Amino acid sequence: MERLTYFFGGGRADGDASMRDLLGGKGANLAEMSRIGLPIPAGFTIPTTVCAYFTKHEGRYPEGLQEAVMESLKQVEQVMGKTFGDRANPLLVSVRSGARVSMPGMMDTVLNIGLNDETVQGLAKAGNERFAYDCYRRLVQMYGDVVLGLKPEDDTTPDPFESVISEVKHKRGAQKDTDLTVEDLKELVRRFKDLIREAKGIDFPEDPYKQLWGAIDAVFKSWNNRRAIEYRRINNIPDDWGTAVNVQAMVFGNLGWDSGTGVAFTRNPATGENEFYGEYLLNAQGEDVVAGIRTPQPINKHQKGESDLPSLEEEMPEVYQQLLDVRQKLEQHFKDMQDIEFTIEKRRLWVLQTRAGKRTGLAALRIAFDMYREHLIDRDTVLLRIEPEQLNHILRPVFDAAEKDKAKRERRVVAIGLNAGPGAATGRVVFSANRVKDYAENKEPVILVREETSPEDVGGMSLAEGILTARGGMTSHAALVARQLGKVCVVGCDALDINYDESLMRVGEHVIKEGDFISIDGTTGEVILGKIPTVKSEIERVLVEKSLKPEDSDTYQLYQTIMEWADELRRLKVRANADQPDQAAKAVAFGAEGIGLCRTEHMFFAEDRINKVRQMILAANPSERREALAKIEPVQTEDFKAIFRAMAGKPVTIRLLDPPLHEFLPKTDEEMEATAKEIGIPKQAIIEKTETLREMNPMLGNRGCRLGITRPEIYDVQVRAIMVAACDLKLEGLEVIPEIMVPLVGEARELAFIRERAEAIAKKVMEEKGIQVSYLIGTMVEVPRACITADEVASVAEFFSFGTNDLTQMTYGLSRDDAGPVIRRYLDVGIMKRDPFEALDRTGVGGLMKVAVEKARKARPGIKLGICGEHGGEPSSIEFCEQIGLDYVSCSPYRIPVARLAAARAVLKKALAGVGSSF
Amino acid sequence: MERLTYFFGGGRADGDASMRDLLGGKGANLAEMSRIGLPIPAGFTIPTTVCAYFTKHEGRYPEGLQEAVMESLKQVEQVMGKTFGDRANPLLVSVRSGARVSMPGMMDTVLNIGLNDETVQGLAKAGNERFAYDCYRRLVQMYGDVVLGLKPEDDTTPDPFESVISEVKHKRGAQKDTDLTVEDLKELVRRFKDLIREAKGIDFPEDPYKQLWGAIDAVFKSWNNRRAIEYRRINNIPDDWGTAVNVQAMVFGNLGWDSGTGVAFTRNPATGENEFYGEYLLNAQGEDVVAGIRTPQPINKHQKGESDLPSLEEEMPEVYQQLLDVRQKLEQHFKDMQDIEFTIEKRRLWVLQTRAGKRTGLAALRIAFDMYREHLIDRDTVLLRIEPEQLNHILRPVFDAAEKDKAKRERRVVAIGLNAGPGAATGRVVFSANRVKDYAENKEPVILVREETSPEDVGGMSLAEGILTARGGMTSHAALVARQLGKVCVVGCDALDINYDESLMRVGEHVIKEGDFISIDGTTGEVILGKIPTVKSEIERVLVEKSLKPEDSDTYQLYQTIMEWADELRRLKVRANADQPDQAAKAVAFGAEGIGLCRTEHMFFAEDRINKVRQMILAANPSERREALAKIEPVQTEDFKAIFRAMAGKPVTIRLLDPPLHEFLPKTDEEMEATAKEIGIPKQAIIEKTETLREMNPMLGNRGCRLGITRPEIYDVQVRAIMVAACDLKLEGLEVIPEIMVPLVGEARELAFIRERAEAIAKKVMEEKGIQVSYLIGTMVEVPRACITADEVASVAEFFSFGTNDLTQMTYGLSRDDAGPVIRRYLDVGIMKRDPFEALDRTGVGGLMKVAVEKARKARPGIKLGICGEHGGEPSSIEFCEQIGLDYVSCSPYRIPVARLAAARAVLKKALAGVGSSF
Repeated sequence: MERLTYFFGGGRADGDASMRDLLGGKGANLAEMSRIGLPIPAGFTIPTTVCAYFTKHEGRYPEGLQEAVMESLKQVEQVMGKTFGDRANPLLVSVRSGARVSMPGMMDTVLNIGLNDETVQGLAKAGNERFAYDCYRRLVQMYGDVVLGLKPEDDTTPDPFESVISEVKHKRGAQKDTDLTVEDLKELVRRFKDLIREAKGIDFPEDPYKQLWGAIDAVFKSWNNRRAIEYRRINNIPDDWGTAVNVQAMVFGNLGWDSGTGVAFTRNPATGENEFYGEYLLNAQGEDVVAGIRTPQPINKHQKGESDLPSLEEEMPEVYQQLLDVRQKLEQHFKDMQDIEFTIEKRRLWVLQTRAGKRTGLAALRIAFDMYREHLIDRDTVLLRIEPEQLNHILRPVFDAAEKDKAKRERRVVAIGLNAGPGAATGRVVFSANRVKDYAENKEPVILVREETSPEDVGGMSLAEGILTARGGMTSHAALVARQLGKVCVVGCDALDINYDESLMRVGEHVIKEGDFISIDGTTGEVILGKIPTVKSEIERVLVEKSLKPEDSDTYQLYQTIMEWADELRRLKVRANADQPDQAAKAVAFGAEGIGLCRTEHMFFAEDRINKVRQMILAANPSERREALAKIEPVQTEDFKAIFRAMAGKPVTIRLLDPPLHEFLPKTDEEMEATAKEIGIPKQAIIEKTETLREMNPMLGNRGCRLGITRPEIYDVQVRAIMVAACDLKLEGLEVIPEIMVPLVGEARELAFIRERAEAIAKKVMEEKGIQVSYLIGTMVEVPRACITADEVASVAEFFSFGTNDLTQMTYGLSRDDAGPVIRRYLDVGIMKRDPFEALDRTGVGGLMKVAVEKARKARPGIKLGICGEHGGEPSSIEFCEQIGLDYVSCSPYRIPVARLAAARAVLKKALAGVGSSF
Repeated sequence: MERLTYFFGGGRADGDASMRDLLGGKGANLAEMSRIGLPIPAGFTIPTTVCAYFTKHEGRYPEGLQEAVMESLKQVEQVMGKTFGDRANPLLVSVRSGARVSMPGMMDTVLNIGLNDETVQGLAKAGNERFAYDCYRRLVQMYGDVVLGLKPEDDTTPDPFESVISEVKHKRGAQKDTDLTVEDLKELVRRFKDLIREAKGIDFPEDPYKQLWGAIDAVFKSWNNRRAIEYRRINNIPDDWGTAVNVQAMVFGNLGWDSGTGVAFTRNPATGENEFYGEYLLNAQGEDVVAGIRTPQPINKHQKGESDLPSLEEEMPEVYQQLLDVRQKLEQHFKDMQDIEFTIEKRRLWVLQTRAGKRTGLAALRIAFDMYREHLIDRDTVLLRIEPEQLNHILRPVFDAAEKDKAKRERRVVAIGLNAGPGAATGRVVFSANRVKDYAENKEPVILVREETSPEDVGGMSLAEGILTARGGMTSHAALVARQLGKVCVVGCDALDINYDESLMRVGEHVIKEGDFISIDGTTGEVILGKIPTVKSEIERVLVEKSLKPEDSDTYQLYQTIMEWADELRRLKVRANADQPDQAAKAVAFGAEGIGLCRTEHMFFAEDRINKVRQMILAANPSERREALAKIEPVQTEDFKAIFRAMAGKPVTIRLLDPPLHEFLPKTDEEMEATAKEIGIPKQAIIEKTETLREMNPMLGNRGCRLGITRPEIYDVQVRAIMVAACDLKLEGLEVIPEIMVPLVGEARELAFIRERAEAIAKKVMEEKGIQVSYLIGTMVEVPRACITADEVASVAEFFSFGTNDLTQMTYGLSRDDAGPVIRRYLDVGIMKRDPFEALDRTGVGGLMKVAVEKARKARPGIKLGICGEHGGEPSSIEFCEQIGLDYVSCSPYRIPVARLAAARAVLKKALAGVGSSF
């Protein structure tokens, strides 16, 4: 153990940012800030190695620590111009933990160390008496709680010090802590000390050094408290890392009107403009700025605008100049927009913290691009700076900000659900997909509200502005379809109590009836009463609507540049999940290089054919069935032609019918009646067929390729329709690249069976049409068995597309329709880090995918491998797809820009991690 | 190519049994029979290599084949004393295919080759004219069909020759072929020849050699006909194996009253007694013995008994002596009981075929054991000779054979379902589990008939003699519980049309009301009207009922010996799936070495506690829930004590609660009413809770450990009950080895969460009781993710038990409740060889198991590994468990003897296959 303390302050430091393992995150950052000349309160770090020693040697310290601490403390005194334990001008210090990774709130902190009955007078002189005694009583309380262990472990038992405060407040008739007088605070100090004496049989140490060592001990010990151990277990943090301890001078912004505190962003976090942006308050502590009791003041004149609050630039021009200097240093050093906290103590500026600032999507793009132009960062860094999800912010329609704030103030935000489809939507509440059409005919915007949605609702969903459900998670049917359709969507909002019979819902005390206006924010999950005006994204207005010229949109220019850079870098192709020509066109506008998943069931649900499909299902014999299918075939052929046309020259992966047949049958008595009449069979036949097809676990039932094997005539017709469409278009001179995808294969022989029939049909069609079309036959890999036998499956498949939605369900044995309560609980107790239906589970599901990729490539070296589950549009999943070497990802049209950027970043991250060769 | 033909006959042969690849199965066997001196009709085999040459060279033969065939044919003539093409004494031959493995009916055969207008006269002289012309018209027809390709490929088009036969029969007013006269047959020969001339423009070849070569060509070609190719694809037979062709002299048992034909078993196939057993008919063909038009005669005086039909021993003593000699040779050579077909042509005995004879379970045991005593085979061979499933035959109650035959004759067998639980049961039909109890109180035997069963029915099932369901497969709830309870069970009998409201069912034209008697045969799946008396197995009477002394039962003695030998050899331990003390006791009687799966949900369903369980589920808040659980705890404690007592000194694996909570709620309105009243809450609360708990895919829902995490108090109580029971018994001086099994773990942290709580509880209980009990905590591996992350899971699990029922469901993504139609279809078209819920899927599910075993052993070398799915009692699955090195299998009590034998055989087979080191 070389060094036992690491000093920082006064523009120098023993450590730096790279020494995170030794100094902890906080200590390393403080050192770095000091090094680059930021005016930080001086202090020193006792490294993590001491913690390891301390734990190993049952609370003893390595030799020399005492001396090192004393030595460092001296340096602190020098820089701060105050002396620890001095009556007139006392230095106070804080003692804080700081591990390699942040463990927020898990370990202990003691503030205001150095106060006693004498030094408190000195502090009172510097500020005022009330302030000084408030600091003092806080020290005694924290010392008692933390160092002497008086804080109850159990959250339900009250803290004994808090009980005393309550008593005193009660006696004085005081409401808030701030109502307490100087005398009250002095009484608290006395009674706290009595409490300590009674409880522990010792006196509160008046000796500042005893206080300091007690606090250091306590913080090291807190590494092994119950909560911290639990936290490490959940977060896989090794117990032997240990924590560092930071001893740092206290500074106060509430010492008078020549002191103050504030926060600032080095650039505008909302727009990204290169302007200094912040707020401050004089004679205040950090929490006062946040608490909103006093209105914070703007930091400079520019930002002040028409406001008549004085700015810091005006009130303390010399401090503002210092702050500008800090801003300059920070951006030059960190090369990113920073969010800083600062305190002014008697006109002296202290920076307490700096970190990369949170920003909107637009700001992220603009800042990164501007910094590139300012030669601060290179192209790769630009791409790494923009979180792919942030692209969503600039792609979605949004609420007019002022109007939404107004709604918040008016307390019209009545519930919060899961933010499944970003964007903003406002419209009339409607509780059934059919009713949406009625409103849509009158051009009335609609928010479709359902317990949960099903494939029958897709028609209505496509006409609604937004979708709101009471059940289901981020990958529920509603969420999935909404994202593909680019609809605003909030799901799993369990505060909704929907009554279909009365066409109304209750939310808390509110009753919302059909036709009432609500607004939903798919970016935040908020459900808001009444209308809020929305604005469409500029990108969409340029690319899809073409109602805005590219050159008139700065945002579009930014977007376009970033996308070009991403495209140059990425290896993964990006395709779209789309099954309607308009979706396909939109996907192409957003940069899709093909369709990775064209579901055919949504086509089956369209109004003009659902009854033909039902006729096919309800057919009493094969000849009736063939008859019904014969009616479906030309319609399907037109469907495919439209899609092929929209994607001309790009590959289109068409998935053969997947859902179990019962999904297509009418559900309610009324619908059954109507269907029976329309196709001319008794209602009883529908009831009986429904009963026959009923399944206990439809997810694990007769669907996917099983359907294609138990009822081969359905796939026959679909394959014929695909090939007829492809041949016809090719005869017109259009290039078509059909890829026929067989879902739910778990056994190579399933695919072989279907492939044999499909090839025979394709051959026949091509002979009839007198033209050759090259096509592929492959499978959706979504059953664990397909992964583990991928070599066999690949021997009959020309491509694999991982259907990670189902694969996740089956690998976990967890249905996404039912997973809600389980996953919520698992996230709560730390069993899961993220919902595996949202971000691909790399170990389990990903483990199976790796097995599949290896086996498939061994059996068929050139096999094309992709992913078309929802994960195909999720950045961390895309990163994994890059790692295991897939050829493409496929996602809903609105996710395509996100995927393009994520794919580029995945290349960069792979290079950074040097994992290039480990797969 | 060394040799082009392989002669056999006259006690010698060019080939032998080992040359299967070259000579095909049939050819190699004929060679072997000839070698050991059996009087087989002479012939020769053209090897598979010629087929390969023929296919490769577009129908040309290798040089020298012509000569080789002529040469071999000469040898045949010599041995048979007849000449090919000779007018007076013509040799006729058959030409048959014969591949390495049997491909029944896939390839072509031509009989009676050598007949023409001249030789037919010679044949007529040897027998009679009608016989000779019948042979002749058959040859012309087969030649036309097979060699000239006149047989329509499509099964629906009639064979042109059959059309001619129909015409002639119609003209003559003949009903059957046998009604045709000599003149009719002559006319057929003429018209057949005309038909050939018209259709093919050529004459039927009168030249016997032309006939022969045409037939050989046709048989080789048939290797590549559509059906054969399809069959090979389904059965994974390589196309390049090719078929051999066998040319063999024809012999006839219908040449007169000095000729005949018969079948014989070298020992009694029903009892295994060492006695020659067979039937024959004079002046007959093989099909006459089987067809049952004439009653076959007994082969010897012993078997004849009181019958007055003359035996072969009496009618042709010298032939019978030859046959005895054959019997002797066969048993000495094949060292197994043989089933032979023979023909007597003019007092000369010809053996046509021999193969290992099918036998009952009792016969299998007795024959193997007798042969061991006769020094024919060793102990290992004894074990390999007895199919484990055959032990079932001697363990199950059976129908009195004569009575069942009577029922068959009376056409009382009205339906056939799946034979899910072997044995025989007879009783009154009852349609609800509750009604079973009423009958049981009156000691009335009951057959419980349900659409399908659910956990609530278990009480009723345990009181019924047998269970019959209309839906569900071999691993449906009914089948699973029935096998565990040792109940006779027939499932998936879709001919039943059950009407619960009227308490009756329709089966075809029959109406069966509650209280009517039916009988079900769980070994054959038959459903029979009325009573049939049953007999309990001797084994059970000795071991379980102790109503029979061991020394009084030969069958028991046999069983016991075989079990001892198996136990000496096997490596795998065998445990039982049991959750009631009586089941546990039965399991021990059958040799269980512990309990591998004690389900706790069946305990929850017992009448005296189901409402406590419901109270717990319906509790409005945690304190109500704890209150309800407090009532359950002492009951569970007693449950576990009883099981521990029954298994004293043997490990007991207890699975914590697994099914989703909604399974425990009342289903019908009536039941809800009753429950509401009993536990004192409004019915509406039950309805609402049912709605809240409803799941789309319960199999993939909130069950297993998910329940233990979302509702930890349930597992807490169960763990407490286990530990209290264990401590109390240990204080009584009893040895207890509890193993706590957490179901459905897919993520190590799930288990860690539960384990932490369980260990705390265990510690507390042991402190309270003042005694230490060693226990294990492990998991059921039944989710694919647990396999792929087995290293992580093993780090927190002390044992794994593969729950292959669920693992199969999730690996295939196929729910066994819904799999019926899919699996039936897959078996039909050859996508599956066996139902994977019955026999473990070694590639997919087994592949995951192998991954899990490897990873688990790496992470925790000593980890105990077992299997407790239904596969744990299935021989081929047990073989796989041996291969991958599991420590034990666990199965229902009645399967334990089967598992013990299968485990021993697995060791032998592993050694034979030399796979010992490949895992």
